[in-house]
Amino acid sequence: MTAHTGARTSTSIGNRGETVASPAIDTASVTALLERGRTLATPVLRAAVARLAPPMDTVAAYHFGWIDADGKPSAGDGGKAVRPALALLSAEVAGAAPAVGVPGAVAVELVHNFSLLHDDLMDGDEQRRHRDTVWKVHGPAQAILVGDALFALANEILLELGTVDAGRATRRLTLATRKLIDGQAQDISYEHRERVTVEECLEMEGNKTGALLACAVSIGAVLGGADDHTADILEKYGYHLGLAFQAVDDLLGIWGDPEATGKQTWSDLRQRKKSLPVVAALAAGGPASERLAEILAADAKKSETEIADFTEEEFASRAALIEEAGGREWTSEEARRQHATAIAALDEIDMPERVRAQLVALADFVVVRER
Amino acid sequence: MTAHTGARTSTSIGNRGETVASPAIDTASVTALLERGRTLATPVLRAAVARLAPPMDTVAAYHFGWIDADGKPSAGDGGKAVRPALALLSAEVAGAAPAVGVPGAVAVELVHNFSLLHDDLMDGDEQRRHRDTVWKVHGPAQAILVGDALFALANEILLELGTVDAGRATRRLTLATRKLIDGQAQDISYEHRERVTVEECLEMEGNKTGALLACAVSIGAVLGGADDHTADILEKYGYHLGLAFQAVDDLLGIWGDPEATGKQTWSDLRQRKKSLPVVAALAAGGPASERLAEILAADAKKSETEIADFTEEEFASRAALIEEAGGREWTSEEARRQHATAIAALDEIDMPERVRAQLVALADFVVVRER
Repeated sequence: MTAHTGARTSTSIGNRGETVASPAIDTASVTALLERGRTLATPVLRAAVARLAPPMDTVAAYHFGWIDADGKPSAGDGGKAVRPALALLSAEVAGAAPAVGVPGAVAVELVHNFSLLHDDLMDGDEQRRHRDTVWKVHGPAQAILVGDALFALANEILLELGTVDAGRATRRLTLATRKLIDGQAQDISYEHRERVTVEECLEMEGNKTGALLACAVSIGAVLGGADDHTADILEKYGYHLGLAFQAVDDLLGIWGDPEATGKQTWSDLRQRKKSLPVVAALAAGGPASERLAEILAADAKKSETEIADFTEEEFASRAALIEEAGGREWTSEEARRQHATAIAALDEIDMPERVRAQLVALADFVVVRER
Repeated sequence: MTAHTGARTSTSIGNRGETVASPAIDTASVTALLERGRTLATPVLRAAVARLAPPMDTVAAYHFGWIDADGKPSAGDGGKAVRPALALLSAEVAGAAPAVGVPGAVAVELVHNFSLLHDDLMDGDEQRRHRDTVWKVHGPAQAILVGDALFALANEILLELGTVDAGRATRRLTLATRKLIDGQAQDISYEHRERVTVEECLEMEGNKTGALLACAVSIGAVLGGADDHTADILEKYGYHLGLAFQAVDDLLGIWGDPEATGKQTWSDLRQRKKSLPVVAALAAGGPASERLAEILAADAKKSETEIADFTEEEFASRAALIEEAGGREWTSEEARRQHATAIAALDEIDMPERVRAQLVALADFVVVRER
C-alpha cells in the first residue's frame, strides 16, 4: 500500500479467515462521491435515453431499471455508480468543475450498458440485477437493437459538444469499447477451452473491466482540457483499479454473501466460470490443484442441468479445493497488488490534493466492498 | 428531370412495358468512379479490419467476401461500391483531393456492414450476396460481436485523424447510424402489422437506406473542411438518392431478373415484404387493390413453408395484382421523383462543374441499374 492510505481494517475477501490489511476508507466521503455522480449523471442519462424512438426507449428504460416489464415506474437498483463518480473526479483532476465530466460519465454508462445488453444475449444470461434480462423479456432483436442504439448515443452525447477535446474523449471511449469487445471475444473463446492461463485471464479481465473503468477516469479530464500524458496516467490508475475491482468480483462470485451480492451462492461455480481464483488454483500445482483439475474436467462433460442439480456441499467442496490450492489467497493478493499499482500511478501527475485523496478513497472502496 | 441530364433511354423498371424516360448515363464515367472508390477505399478497409483480434478478423473477412467459410481467399463480390464512390466525390465538392474522403468512405462501409451483420441475425436471413450469412456460419455471438467491432472501428478510423472536422464527420456518421437503427426498429415492428402506410414505408426506407447514403455524400466534404450548410445540402441529395435507390430495389425485389440481381424470382414476395410497390398498391383502392389485400391477408396466416411452396404462377398472380393496382407504376414514378429531388438539391451549392456532372451521373446510374 502507499503513503496515501492510512490504517487498515479487516475485510471479507481474505483467505481462510486471516485478517487482510485493507484501507480504512472514509465511508462518508465515498458515499458522497457516489451520490454526486448519480445525482449529476442520471438526469442527463435519462434525457439521452429518451431520445430513442419507441419501443427502444421503453426497452432501454427497462434495462436501466427505471420501469418494470409492464412499463410501470420502478425504483431501480442503479448499481454502485463507481464510473460516474470517477468521471466527475476526473474533470476535477484537470481543474475543471465536476459538471464538465457529466457527458463523459453518461457516455461511459451508455457504453457499459450497451455491452451488458449484448453480452447477456451472447452468454444466454437470463438474470441481471435480480431481474430478467432484456433479451428474455423483449426478445433477442430488441437486445441487439437497443444495445446498438446506446453505443451510438454515447458517441452522440460527446460529439455534440463540438470541441476538439470531445473528439479526443470519443476516441478514447472508442478504443476502450474495442477492448471491451476484445474481452468478450476472449471470454467466449475461453469457454470452449479446457485450460486458461492466469495471464490470459488477467488480459481478458483487463479488457472487459479495466479498459472502460480507465476511460471513466480519463474522460472527464480530457473534456476539461487535460493533455494526453495526464489522461494516460489516469487510465493507468483506472485500468489497475478495474483489475482490482474484478479480482474482488471474482472472490465475491465464489465466496460472496448472497444477501449482499444479490447473486446465488457459489454463483461463478454454478456457471463454471474460469475466474481468477479458479485459474490461479489450477496453475498452482500440488495435490489440491490436481484434484481440482480432475473434478473440473469431469464437470466440463456434464450438462448445465446436471451442474444446476449439484448440492450445496458439492459446490462447497469445489470452493474448498480452490482455496486449498491457494486460488483464494492469490486472488486476494492480486486485488491488493492492483490496488497498490493504481494508487501509485497517481503520484506520476499533479492534481489537487483533495482530488487525489478522493481517488484513493474510491480505490479503497472498490477493494473492500462486499457487493 | 432536371437540366443536368440529357437524352433519355429506356429502362427496365417501367410499368407494363412502357418506355420510361430515363437518363442516358455515361457508363464509362460511372464505371471509373465506382472503380476509383473501390481501388482507394478497399486497401484501407482491409487494413482497418485487420486490426480486429482473432477470430473477429476472420469472421469479418468472411462477411466481406475476402475469404470463404474454410478461410481460403475468395474473390468476393464487393458490391456496387456506390457509397465509397460518393464519399470520394464528396471530398472533391469541398475542393479537396479524393483521397481526403477515404477515411469517410471506409467508416461508412464499416457502419453499413455492422448493420448488415446485426440485421441478418435479427431478421433470421440465412443468405446474403449468394453466401451463408455470418450468424449462420459462425454463430449468433460472432455476428453480434463483429458487428459491434465494425461499428467501433468506424469511429476509430475517423477520430484518429484528430481534427475538428473528423469530430464533425463522426457526429454526422453517428446520427446516420442512429437513423439506421431507427429504420431497423420500424422494419421489425411493421412485420407484425397488417397494414403499413406509404408514408411509414418511405420513412423507414429513408432511415434504413437514405441516412447512410446521405452521410456518404457529406462525409468527404466535411473531412475536406466544408461548412455545415454544404454538408446539409449534400445530405439532402444523398437522402433522396437513397430513397430513389430503394424504390428501384423494391421494384427489382419483385420484377428483377434473377440472372442480374442474384436473388430468387419474386424475392420480396417470397419474404412477404411490405415494400413500396405493395403498400402503394394496397393504398390505391379499387378492385385489384382490394383483391390483393384479401390475398395478402390470407397469406399472412400461412406458414413460411407454405409460402415457400407457392408455384411461380401464384407469385406471378400476386405481382400482376400489385401492378394492376398501380403499385409498380407508382414506385417507378417515386424513383424518378426522388432522383429529380436529389439532383435539384445540387443546385443549392457551388461545386466544380465536373464534380456536379459526376454526382448526376451516379444518381442516374442508381436509377437505371438492373441489380
